[in-house]
Amino acid sequence: MSQALDIPEVIEEVEAVFQEYEKALVNNDVAVLDRLFWEDARVVRYGAGENLYGYDQIQAFRAGRPGGNLARALHNTRITTHGHDLATVWTEFRRPGNPRIGRQSQVWARRPEGWRVVAAHVSFMDEG
Amino acid sequence: MSQALDIPEVIEEVEAVFQEYEKALVNNDVAVLDRLFWEDARVVRYGAGENLYGYDQIQAFRAGRPGGNLARALHNTRITTHGHDLATVWTEFRRPGNPRIGRQSQVWARRPEGWRVVAAHVSFMDEG
Repeated sequence: MSQALDIPEVIEEVEAVFQEYEKALVNNDVAVLDRLFWEDARVVRYGAGENLYGYDQIQAFRAGRPGGNLARALHNTRITTHGHDLATVWTEFRRPGNPRIGRQSQVWARRPEGWRVVAAHVSFMDEG
Repeated sequence: MSQALDIPEVIEEVEAVFQEYEKALVNNDVAVLDRLFWEDARVVRYGAGENLYGYDQIQAFRAGRPGGNLARALHNTRITTHGHDLATVWTEFRRPGNPRIGRQSQVWARRPEGWRVVAAHVSFMDEG
């Protein structure tokens, strides 16, 4: 068996939470960012300069992060949903005045408490 | 509704394909690497120095990649399965003689043809 891909109403739900996350990120709305990450020891977030394991490490990172200069533009965003409860959101981003190409990968899962990021990876592409 | 996590037989299956992939990677066994990626226009692979969209771009990248110096050791590998058909595999890696910390994220899905990587992200962590 395998799962139905890109069911329109699932894509719509994931687009909504992804937009909510993005808005919270550029505004450094830590309460929303915390809420949208899976509150579980298994959640992993690789950031550009750190590897975080478990909800507590991610929450501590957010709390200590400076709030400025988080504006960015997204490019080539790709959302794919698998069945009703899982989605991948892979997107490139650029910050104003920064030539580096950022990449953000998120796996979203529908949990009893709502859609949550269960694994994430953010990096800047190495120059050629 | 949400999905059962870490069902033992699903973890076992994902561990097996992940090991198969890792062995193929360090041996540059392109046929196996190609087989284990989802043959679909929606597959995405962010590499350390490139962003690849769709199976054809990934296959062309593999075909043109030099085969040497691919040995590496994995650290802090985290496998989490969601239901019977989806898994995240997030792992750090280091190459001998290279001080940089690598990170590889893969989303595996059970497709009609077998378990396949449907989205991937590889990067080196920025130095602090």
